[in-house]
Amino acid sequence: MSSLRFARIAHESPDGIEPRVVASEPGADRWVDVRAAECRRLERGGASAVAARRLATALVPGSLTAALEGGTAFREAADRAAQEADPDTFAPEGARLLRPIDPPAYRDFMAFEEHFVNASRRFDREPAAVLYEMPVSYFGNAHAIVGPEDEIPWPHYTRAMDYELELGIVIGTPGRDLTPETALDHVLGLVNFNDFSARDIQGVEMSGGLGPSKGKHFGSAVGPWITTLDALDPNDLAMTARINGETWSEGSTSTLLWSIAELVAWASTGEPLAAGTLLGSGTVGRGCGLELGRTLEPGDVVELEIEGLGVLRNRLGTPPPSGWRPEPRERASAGAR
Amino acid sequence: MSSLRFARIAHESPDGIEPRVVASEPGADRWVDVRAAECRRLERGGASAVAARRLATALVPGSLTAALEGGTAFREAADRAAQEADPDTFAPEGARLLRPIDPPAYRDFMAFEEHFVNASRRFDREPAAVLYEMPVSYFGNAHAIVGPEDEIPWPHYTRAMDYELELGIVIGTPGRDLTPETALDHVLGLVNFNDFSARDIQGVEMSGGLGPSKGKHFGSAVGPWITTLDALDPNDLAMTARINGETWSEGSTSTLLWSIAELVAWASTGEPLAAGTLLGSGTVGRGCGLELGRTLEPGDVVELEIEGLGVLRNRLGTPPPSGWRPEPRERASAGAR
Repeated sequence: MSSLRFARIAHESPDGIEPRVVASEPGADRWVDVRAAECRRLERGGASAVAARRLATALVPGSLTAALEGGTAFREAADRAAQEADPDTFAPEGARLLRPIDPPAYRDFMAFEEHFVNASRRFDREPAAVLYEMPVSYFGNAHAIVGPEDEIPWPHYTRAMDYELELGIVIGTPGRDLTPETALDHVLGLVNFNDFSARDIQGVEMSGGLGPSKGKHFGSAVGPWITTLDALDPNDLAMTARINGETWSEGSTSTLLWSIAELVAWASTGEPLAAGTLLGSGTVGRGCGLELGRTLEPGDVVELEIEGLGVLRNRLGTPPPSGWRPEPRERASAGAR
Repeated sequence: MSSLRFARIAHESPDGIEPRVVASEPGADRWVDVRAAECRRLERGGASAVAARRLATALVPGSLTAALEGGTAFREAADRAAQEADPDTFAPEGARLLRPIDPPAYRDFMAFEEHFVNASRRFDREPAAVLYEMPVSYFGNAHAIVGPEDEIPWPHYTRAMDYELELGIVIGTPGRDLTPETALDHVLGLVNFNDFSARDIQGVEMSGGLGPSKGKHFGSAVGPWITTLDALDPNDLAMTARINGETWSEGSTSTLLWSIAELVAWASTGEPLAAGTLLGSGTVGRGCGLELGRTLEPGDVVELEIEGLGVLRNRLGTPPPSGWRPEPRERASAGAR
């Protein structure tokens, strides 16, 4: 396999927006449409135009997760497409980039020590011992993952919006009970990841010991593209966050308490890790407003930039005037026996 | 729409096991293969055999989630199939039942007060105030959901296995920001749900404020079928758990602190709720070994039975001799600033 970048672009079709998987070698200045390249290759092998389209569509669907589920057959097609870089298969210049991965699952770790020490002390606590025993994580709502330039919906139940500067890890091939020695073979690549957070409700929820849920699930952003591991030095990538153009956060993947291989291995321990899964590293030290004593406002523009992974830019939406909340309950005298 | 039960059966094909969606009216003693019924209907309308199969396969794929994504078009096909109950479309007698839903997301609540009061007191705590303010929940690993008669894998990192007697709620149509008034229109039906738990690592993980993760994600069971809401009195269903034939737990959905409509509405507040999503109610009071001071052993057979939802039976697997665990880290003097 060669070093690649993967993205998805929006194609306007008579049936609505159609996502297309595109790839390029890291230094290239144009994206190649992988399905179009595969179509042409099949026709050169004697396939009819209709059959070439049918086969290429099956191998390179618009979902990158579905494509990855095809295993090496898909990956080889992407490699060929990017290496040949036939101008007839270039994606249109200026095409809108969608979220590069449509993950079937998303798990967020808390793997930067400086962040969890700082965050704990904001609540007058020392970090829990378990954070040094294993990489602790929770699952988020994979259906709420958005892409570059997408607006982040501001839920009605929060006034304390925050960003989180994280490294995203995209799983390329499924696994279970991996070890750090085998884990990296299951990684497609890395991506900027912004785990937007509603700090007020998040703090309340976490006092219940589950989640968080509403503090996180309204929208996290990923993109603009995925760069394969072999094109990067994953242990030494500079990480930056800018709010309305001003640098708020600077960090490095070199400060991870657990290696990427350990995070992936532990994610797969005792449970299935699906192709296309998105893993978040957790926030780098001083990589969110909570640690800096700052909060975001509606309309703020947040940019994340990790070395080699481009710039992920999102604007915050506006809170709706109101919304439904559950009616609190009285404690029953019944209950415990 | 009429009252229905939905399940999926395993069909042995030359390409391996093929799941087939089946449906029946609640009192019927045979399952109808929905795709087969749709195929015949199309042929009666003049479709060629090949076209009928193509169209029926698109409308009734093997994934119940993918079928539900077809909206009323699918639901009407299921209604017709079950009502006609043409013997030529019956599923083979004794066919193996698969997990009835292949959920794209799974969220578990903690909505029975007696359970969370009892569980808190096991750890010498009073229940957190938030549990009375909103229905608290976390996301689990939807890829780890198994079906009736499936063996539950016993992960290497636990010795304290437990069951949890829960009501499962299956989402039929997607939504966001639903209210209790609109939420039930988005529910397909109810199902037995067993949220198997590894109590030792679960307790450690929850001290970190995220998750739980490894305490839960190794396998949860659902089935054997889904019964639509209109065929049940969801606020008064008897719930039973038996271990190796002995009744350990008895409860009722009447003790829910939050209604099904509130749970679904809150699940959708500020975030997407996808068709096919599985929601767990949380454990009914005294519905797990933790509350009873009892634990499970390898090979134990756990049966859950909620009124109108059949019997969900699973056997526990055997722990592997060893497995990888992360190496604990030292606290750095660096970190907080």
